[in-house]
Amino acid sequence: MPYYIQQLRILQSENVETVSAPKIAERLNLNEVQVRKDFAAVSSSKGKPKAGFSVNDLIDNIEELLGYNNADEAVIVGAGSLAQAILAHEGFRKFGINIVAAFDVDPYRIGSTINEIKVLSSDKISDLCRRMNIHIGIITVPAKEAQVVCDQLVAGGVLAIWNFAPVHLSVPDHILVQNENLAASLAVLSKHLKQAMKEKR
Amino acid sequence: MPYYIQQLRILQSENVETVSAPKIAERLNLNEVQVRKDFAAVSSSKGKPKAGFSVNDLIDNIEELLGYNNADEAVIVGAGSLAQAILAHEGFRKFGINIVAAFDVDPYRIGSTINEIKVLSSDKISDLCRRMNIHIGIITVPAKEAQVVCDQLVAGGVLAIWNFAPVHLSVPDHILVQNENLAASLAVLSKHLKQAMKEKR
Repeated sequence: MPYYIQQLRILQSENVETVSAPKIAERLNLNEVQVRKDFAAVSSSKGKPKAGFSVNDLIDNIEELLGYNNADEAVIVGAGSLAQAILAHEGFRKFGINIVAAFDVDPYRIGSTINEIKVLSSDKISDLCRRMNIHIGIITVPAKEAQVVCDQLVAGGVLAIWNFAPVHLSVPDHILVQNENLAASLAVLSKHLKQAMKEKR
Repeated sequence: MPYYIQQLRILQSENVETVSAPKIAERLNLNEVQVRKDFAAVSSSKGKPKAGFSVNDLIDNIEELLGYNNADEAVIVGAGSLAQAILAHEGFRKFGINIVAAFDVDPYRIGSTINEIKVLSSDKISDLCRRMNIHIGIITVPAKEAQVVCDQLVAGGVLAIWNFAPVHLSVPDHILVQNENLAASLAVLSKHLKQAMKEKR
């Protein structure tokens, strides 16, 4: 499949809109019947008799199949009380989001299970994310460990980071970071309350 | 002190700007020397020889002393993993906020200690909040228990609620509610990621 993607991307860059199975088979030196079968299996629409398949649609379909556009699965790093609270939260499934693995550096936590999720060693972050096409990482480690974890996630192909550590993370430009500062949230509420009390006087 | 406040509020409503100790002593049928002592102890500024004390300042000073304007202390209800994460969070102290008590209905949790905070029975929410002039309540109980807890907090004089339960709370108009929906936060990040992936294609 990655070879198909590669060829389709070349065609796309040449502004070719449709492609037939024999054409791709020829370019990749593959059996035409095999390619026709693969395209039929993966394509969301039938190929047209003469023109073949839409290049853009085929790319989307294959990337979807390979999990290239996976934005529904996440991993969590730091298996402490906050991670436990997040993993126990029933709300994520409602939004179609699935946390598939947890990581920690603490040997006492590694191998344990939180809400049916196995806690793995942080060594495996990059490898697992890449292998499973995980693009969302949740960071719940202490501030001083957050940047290392963040780098491991980014190395594993993670594109979006939900950061609970009270620290600014350095990331490449294309990485989304959403910071969640619980203390600041409560401080905002406290400030609003002070304001409301003052106005009431 | 509450009697002073009562009289001072009446004077304030009559647009009286300053008041002397003897005047208040007379209205409350108290010993003049005692009132003078109390005012001297509580007032942030000295009384002026003839006019006496500023009514507004005295009200502020006494309310401050009694904790009427306490917006720096909070209690947390629901002593599960999220509460443990919040209580372990070092960030709150940085903002000058102190969580002084935790409550739960689970007999196994009541009496235990989380980060030096004792877990008390939920029966005691209203009483403790009123007695300690706590005006902020944090709700980390499951959705179906949240409204009961909320009512207990409001009955105890709590004015601001930080709600982690994924449920809409019914409160009187003067109560501030800040909802914290962790699942929705992650869903927003997932949505942004999908958008970014789409734009990149």
